[in-house]
Amino acid sequence: MPLSPGPFTGRTLTELARDLRAGLTSAAELTERALDAIAERDPELNAFVTVDADGARAAARAADAELAAGTWHGPLHGVPVAVKDLIMTAGLRTTAGSRHFAEHVPDSDATCVARLRRGGAVIVGKTTTHEFAYGPTGDRSANGPSRNPHDPARMSGGSSGGSAAAVAAGLVPLALGTDTGGSVRIPAALCGVAGFKPAYGAISAAGVFPLSLSFDHVGVLAGDARDCLLAYRALADDPSGVADPVPGDVRVAWLDPAGFFAGDPRVVDVARQLAGDVPEVRLPDGLADGLRETYTVIQSCETSAVHAERLTGAPELFDAEVLERLSAAALTPGWRLVRAMNARPVLAALADALFDRHDVLALPTVPITAPPLGLRESELDGRPIAVRAALLSLTSPWNVLKLPALTVPAGTVDGLPVGLQFVCRPGDEHLLFAAAAARGA
Amino acid sequence: MPLSPGPFTGRTLTELARDLRAGLTSAAELTERALDAIAERDPELNAFVTVDADGARAAARAADAELAAGTWHGPLHGVPVAVKDLIMTAGLRTTAGSRHFAEHVPDSDATCVARLRRGGAVIVGKTTTHEFAYGPTGDRSANGPSRNPHDPARMSGGSSGGSAAAVAAGLVPLALGTDTGGSVRIPAALCGVAGFKPAYGAISAAGVFPLSLSFDHVGVLAGDARDCLLAYRALADDPSGVADPVPGDVRVAWLDPAGFFAGDPRVVDVARQLAGDVPEVRLPDGLADGLRETYTVIQSCETSAVHAERLTGAPELFDAEVLERLSAAALTPGWRLVRAMNARPVLAALADALFDRHDVLALPTVPITAPPLGLRESELDGRPIAVRAALLSLTSPWNVLKLPALTVPAGTVDGLPVGLQFVCRPGDEHLLFAAAAARGA
Repeated sequence: MPLSPGPFTGRTLTELARDLRAGLTSAAELTERALDAIAERDPELNAFVTVDADGARAAARAADAELAAGTWHGPLHGVPVAVKDLIMTAGLRTTAGSRHFAEHVPDSDATCVARLRRGGAVIVGKTTTHEFAYGPTGDRSANGPSRNPHDPARMSGGSSGGSAAAVAAGLVPLALGTDTGGSVRIPAALCGVAGFKPAYGAISAAGVFPLSLSFDHVGVLAGDARDCLLAYRALADDPSGVADPVPGDVRVAWLDPAGFFAGDPRVVDVARQLAGDVPEVRLPDGLADGLRETYTVIQSCETSAVHAERLTGAPELFDAEVLERLSAAALTPGWRLVRAMNARPVLAALADALFDRHDVLALPTVPITAPPLGLRESELDGRPIAVRAALLSLTSPWNVLKLPALTVPAGTVDGLPVGLQFVCRPGDEHLLFAAAAARGA
Repeated sequence: MPLSPGPFTGRTLTELARDLRAGLTSAAELTERALDAIAERDPELNAFVTVDADGARAAARAADAELAAGTWHGPLHGVPVAVKDLIMTAGLRTTAGSRHFAEHVPDSDATCVARLRRGGAVIVGKTTTHEFAYGPTGDRSANGPSRNPHDPARMSGGSSGGSAAAVAAGLVPLALGTDTGGSVRIPAALCGVAGFKPAYGAISAAGVFPLSLSFDHVGVLAGDARDCLLAYRALADDPSGVADPVPGDVRVAWLDPAGFFAGDPRVVDVARQLAGDVPEVRLPDGLADGLRETYTVIQSCETSAVHAERLTGAPELFDAEVLERLSAAALTPGWRLVRAMNARPVLAALADALFDRHDVLALPTVPITAPPLGLRESELDGRPIAVRAALLSLTSPWNVLKLPALTVPAGTVDGLPVGLQFVCRPGDEHLLFAAAAARGA
């Protein structure tokens, strides 16, 4: 089904900045266009939990005044931005997608939000998250499921589903998300936008409601890879950021995703097509299983540690599915956590070999297209598949390994978006973005 | 009951070295005296699992040949030493007190054993450990309980019970132990000898069968504190060791043990008496409970991670009580481990305040005297007490906090030994030993 464009569809941060600085538009005008589009489209998409029209207009006025005075804070200046509702915003309700925090108004901004404001961004609202970010489907939240702009009967993916839907529908040019096992990249891929999860710790997660502290990352969603890079530079702890991607030889290798998950071959083909004619690497034996076990165990233990008091004190406030999964996670024995933590450096050493002769790995972001809302068990070529496991299968390994990973739109299958994922070692981010740029992404 | 002396009762490493170097005795003679005494006394004490007469005689001959050639490797040269059977010895059976390793002969030495040999020590045998070091009572081992030389119907304490009994009976002047929650200091105190657990990591634990890697320490047991220091210097990773304890003002404070455990007041009085007229500090609120929970949870998870395959594959080979406790430990949920690990730096910061105005803390090592073998529940002033919890209560906090801790004999209650424990911050070990020396220990 054709995606109806929004005011920011196809408009890059670079173009917006040029127009703003040239006086061809204003932050106020961009903000009104975002607010109008949200009012029109969001009843269908449910990308937003909270829209802060007053706050956005005030921020836009301030941004315009600074521009008028000759001050420009960079590529976020005057740009409408949406923020995942897991990320604290001072004075603006932050629910984490849960009835436990239905009326929670933080006192202070998360570090990444403070950096947005410092960069002159205009925060227009908070986007739908799977409750407590505990799910890659994006369809279990106190404010209802976020929906895929390509087909509102289908998942946006999650947990940063609202951020992905808002960017994909062109309601905003940029959104913040968080990514613990793929929560930026999965919805970005399923909704057909770009999403970047930097190296672990590269953007401070202070002020983000924790899901699993060992794996939690702040990331960005935008129309293309270049905009992800611009936003990343404005948000990173190290302000020197990433070197500019220069055209040239980047040693890209295709990583056969079958070692992680035997996905939809049509999806794999679309991603492979964009990756192009590059050599292929295979996963070392045992790496996929080890990464999956490590991810599952550490995440289960850390998440249930976050919620232990709520699980006993007010279980009825959780979404029923989230409650059931959290309750099961809380039973994970500690000895498995010890094993998982011990495995992590071993797995990292094993994975390092993947980069022996290559700078960047390419593989699909998600091995299937967006499933219908609520679907948990599906079939692929007659095989039963677990939807949640499928969604996470190709993204969570890079959270365990702390590696930067970027997803870009690669095409469609049955009219539904497919993402191509690039992965590199920390310090090689410029090569990651160069690989995307070389493929027109 | 009066303790019958052995060949090394009251003989210090300093005296032995003087006599060896002066030709007044030989390593061969000392070794024979140790072997004879073991043959005579050990049937009653069960301090040894394995006696290596041939190996000891060969080592003694080599040590004597070196002395004759003018080479002296330091205070361990030619000295009979016993090694806890949890510590790997190349070519010499190492059972870890378990039927799982009844005939296990390691290929290589633990690092601490290699250092013993480098120092010219004569390893006479392996000492009884509670099975897998998993118990402070010392009375559950595949080779039977080690017994207290002061009353063989009573516990040696554990898990390094054989090492403590061997030194207390004067069978050897020095023994190696390991200390995860008090396993050097508890048996040292109950048997009336000195024992030192250095700072975490100060003596490599490589080649020690793990109990709980976050807390495992290698330590030493000897007749007095000075001998512990000499042995520690020979074994420490940093060969510069510890500065010599110079007489002078050491700021010692008495730490009221009641915050950890309300023990036998007569035991507390004996320890307090040796500590002398020093100021008193109190535990910060919440510290004792936090340390106990952290110790219990981390130790349970780490220990059950070590034994998971044995628990499912060959449970019948464990001692019944050890099996029951390990099985319970394996059920500790991972989220509690996450909380415990997060608590550790918080507790360390809280405990640091104890040293604001003092260099060394003094408290009893164990708040009770040696209980009868097999006793698990007891009474103190009409209150029920759990024996294991009582034994560990004053030692395990310093494992969680990674602090050096020394126990010295302080006197007796009903003829049973009482230990006084000194605790310091890493780097202040010379003050710890100075505090002991100032009290004649």
